Amino acid sequence: MAAECPSRDVLRRLTGRWGMLVLRALAGGPHRFSALRNRIRGVSERMLAQTLQGLEADGMVLRRDFQTVPPHVEYSLTPLGQEAALRVGALLDWIEDSLPQIAHGWARA
Amino acid sequence: MAAECPSRDVLRRLTGRWGMLVLRALAGGPHRFSALRNRIRGVSERMLAQTLQGLEADGMVLRRDFQTVPPHVEYSLTPLGQEAALRVGALLDWIEDSLPQIAHGWARA
Repeated sequence: MAAECPSRDVLRRLTGRWGMLVLRALAGGPHRFSALRNRIRGVSERMLAQTLQGLEADGMVLRRDFQTVPPHVEYSLTPLGQEAALRVGALLDWIEDSLPQIAHGWARA
Repeated sequence: MAAECPSRDVLRRLTGRWGMLVLRALAGGPHRFSALRNRIRGVSERMLAQTLQGLEADGMVLRRDFQTVPPHVEYSLTPLGQEAALRVGALLDWIEDSLPQIAHGWARA
């Protein structure tokens, strides 16, 4: 991965703190913006919007506007996004499973 | 993953841009600091040192000082770090393999 390689940008968007959590949330099915915000604790409206835009631009997330009043917009994973979510999910699950072991090291330090 | 969960910190260190690239480089075997710096383009000395310290504190990286003059220090993965590197590597490999498809979407935007 050379510094100038565009994969670095994709990496940043996919593995940004919010990108990973959005992918995991959407792996459970389509969500509205407000539902995503409730699910991902600590994310601001602005950061979530920015994260979704980045993932949409990378072809990972599909934004569907039902063209209703009041507006109803849903976000879901594309097939590419589902593949990404699989890898991201494997990493997140491993971190959570390994947390006791990792924290054990902190306690000794 | 609640906002206050310590897994968020581990996530940040593992999936920080440099964390992932360090794990992948070390998956190929032990490296000296200068060899890592050469291999990971664009990382500053300070950022690499900080990244290694974080991964060491999380029990992913082992720092071995041979106690020689001039100093010879090697970094390697612990068994825990090898497990992390597997997941991180799967994600990085997938991004690289999928980059043509992702970039195809950029071109249409």
